[in-house]
Amino acid sequence: MNNSNSAQPDGPLRGLRIVELGHFVAAPFCTRVLADLGAEIIKVETPGRGDPVRTWGKMINGKSLWWSVHGRNKKSVTLNLKHPRGIELAKRLIEKADAVVENFKPGQLERWGLGPDVIEAINPGCTLVRISGYGQTGPYKDRAAFGVIGEAMGGLRHLTAFPADQSDLPPARTGVSLGDMLTGLYAAIGLLSALYEKRAASGKSRPGRVVDVALTESVFTLLEGCLTEYGKLGMIRQPTGSTLPTNAPSNAYPCKDGKWIVIAANSDALFARMMTLIGREDLAADSRFDDNPGRVEGARELDGAISQWTMTMVGAKASRTVQEAGIPSTEIYTIEDCTNDPQFQHRGMIRKIDDPRLGDVLHPGIVPRFDDRGPTGGIGWAGPDVGAHNTEVYGGMLGLTPDDLGTLKREAII
Amino acid sequence: MNNSNSAQPDGPLRGLRIVELGHFVAAPFCTRVLADLGAEIIKVETPGRGDPVRTWGKMINGKSLWWSVHGRNKKSVTLNLKHPRGIELAKRLIEKADAVVENFKPGQLERWGLGPDVIEAINPGCTLVRISGYGQTGPYKDRAAFGVIGEAMGGLRHLTAFPADQSDLPPARTGVSLGDMLTGLYAAIGLLSALYEKRAASGKSRPGRVVDVALTESVFTLLEGCLTEYGKLGMIRQPTGSTLPTNAPSNAYPCKDGKWIVIAANSDALFARMMTLIGREDLAADSRFDDNPGRVEGARELDGAISQWTMTMVGAKASRTVQEAGIPSTEIYTIEDCTNDPQFQHRGMIRKIDDPRLGDVLHPGIVPRFDDRGPTGGIGWAGPDVGAHNTEVYGGMLGLTPDDLGTLKREAII
Repeated sequence: MNNSNSAQPDGPLRGLRIVELGHFVAAPFCTRVLADLGAEIIKVETPGRGDPVRTWGKMINGKSLWWSVHGRNKKSVTLNLKHPRGIELAKRLIEKADAVVENFKPGQLERWGLGPDVIEAINPGCTLVRISGYGQTGPYKDRAAFGVIGEAMGGLRHLTAFPADQSDLPPARTGVSLGDMLTGLYAAIGLLSALYEKRAASGKSRPGRVVDVALTESVFTLLEGCLTEYGKLGMIRQPTGSTLPTNAPSNAYPCKDGKWIVIAANSDALFARMMTLIGREDLAADSRFDDNPGRVEGARELDGAISQWTMTMVGAKASRTVQEAGIPSTEIYTIEDCTNDPQFQHRGMIRKIDDPRLGDVLHPGIVPRFDDRGPTGGIGWAGPDVGAHNTEVYGGMLGLTPDDLGTLKREAII
Repeated sequence: MNNSNSAQPDGPLRGLRIVELGHFVAAPFCTRVLADLGAEIIKVETPGRGDPVRTWGKMINGKSLWWSVHGRNKKSVTLNLKHPRGIELAKRLIEKADAVVENFKPGQLERWGLGPDVIEAINPGCTLVRISGYGQTGPYKDRAAFGVIGEAMGGLRHLTAFPADQSDLPPARTGVSLGDMLTGLYAAIGLLSALYEKRAASGKSRPGRVVDVALTESVFTLLEGCLTEYGKLGMIRQPTGSTLPTNAPSNAYPCKDGKWIVIAANSDALFARMMTLIGREDLAADSRFDDNPGRVEGARELDGAISQWTMTMVGAKASRTVQEAGIPSTEIYTIEDCTNDPQFQHRGMIRKIDDPRLGDVLHPGIVPRFDDRGPTGGIGWAGPDVGAHNTEVYGGMLGLTPDDLGTLKREAII
């Protein structure tokens, strides 16, 4: 189970070097996913404090548990980007990179003198991925980007709710950094696509591409079907709570121990089997429920009958009983359930990592998963201390002497 | 606004050819994102009916509106994979591809005689991306994969809810195909990473990689922070409804017209500004609320005061007033709000496409967005009819004669 060592994990992206000028969640998540697959990430942080996520959530020995995952497999170097010599060093790092990923406010790179044209001049063909709340252009580009705001503007938050006749509570958050992480995934796709294009040009001169990924737009892509229905029919998709609007019965059902289980019995065969299981052959035989439209119409009645049955037992037993009848079902997993699940364990999704500051920590495994015909990526080390790789990167890669490093440190440039 | 034509959009992925053996959402979403960036996608469908999404949701003239987006920029060919000559043709397509993306049940490709070893034999170095509910291995691999089940097992659904003391309703769905789409994005990253590795080997013989992406695991990656906290402290992350558990005030607030607005006033400065705006300087001056921990403690009181103010006006006015005070805020957007938003419009995220069967349809724009130093991708055509590209692909690419095609058609092989 212990996959921690201190070597860069070998994976399909070995040899790819990325400079991260990132903080918070979106850009660092993008590079973390790429680092897991073997890319070398040089993460540039403010001397001293570093990335704010280092102190987010629960902390032990001055280190946030989240950071252990969020920063894993990356090389941390410090750099004061408000100082001209900091910018000079940033340029020397960028000169040796295949790509730069950043998520400062639009215009900030340019104010530092590190805009796209500068990057192209010092490293022709280098890819620049820019992540922001609303994009690099347009009337909202300068607005402060908060995840909760972007998720609401992307149209997702409206749907994570119950219809007004069932609840007067507002739409729920998804409870994770969904918008930021989605954006990070699109950014990774943009980065790898730009590299594909560069390699396809095979030596022919070609300018580096700038990829512009917005949080609001990444969220909005999830609503592609709603957009077509609105555009053509004026239909405004509304929240449907815990059900599927178009198929029944499919819902979350309460159990005796307060747990909820999900059951998807929304086909003719699954419906009949489910009604037999709960001893309601009368409903299976009822002609009103012969087809899906009829079952959608009578969904509340069917859900009531199923709930009456699920409430007679605890969640674990109810979902197992339904599964054993060949009907898709599961308890709604907490993080504890995920951790103890035999499938997640079998697939290496729960890994115990030795973090020098924290001791053993559980990390999620590598997604996407590569076969063993070649290197798969992995977990080389947990999120490092601020500037942990200054000597390796500035000394080894840029050739600075220990004296140079001492001076830079004293002058608060690194 | 009309970006529809019938040529493959030129983008960074031009020259990349992918055979899609996919259906439903995850695999087709993966290839759609790549198609938008210029990849050539040859989508293999069952003769006659084709992909089930063709009839999902609202339909006009026999075509689902969602399909117009979901199938865009792809070439549709029909192929009966239950027939030996269908398999033979599939092999000839795969021979000419850089990658194959599939999302049948684990083992189905092998049963057809199209498993990884066969693919490697007919096209050495070809990438195979396999998408499934639970992965290609492990005790659950043969279970039926439904999106709602995978989202619940991945740990996300538990968090999309209110605490038990605020609501006895179950966790809500996110209302979109979130798990499938996330999985599609990870699959695209896997595919492009495998191609990176292949090109890096530059000619040296190297086996094709198999990438294995599971819906449950893709969802589970969103919970990375929760996993570390559970592993170290035994903390089981619980839902927090519409609030941020760690920062206050940040919530959704009700308005006079029934709309909800999100306000994120969760810093010392933003909090003070917000209290002044609503005429509650007394709360700004209250020492209990001097720091974030105090505000989290008193979040209900603060949310009550803010709600009292937001309820005096309609959502549009309330959110605009808060924004103008320099505090992040937005209405919770419906799909109508997204469509009419000036930023989405400015950024080309709302595009009017001419679909031969549907007339004008609104499509979302291209994410990620590329700069104009090179080709950006785009929308070449809307989701095509089943087999619309049979002649082009089987005739042009594989060199079959019109007679061959006629015979294959008569024998229900294409």
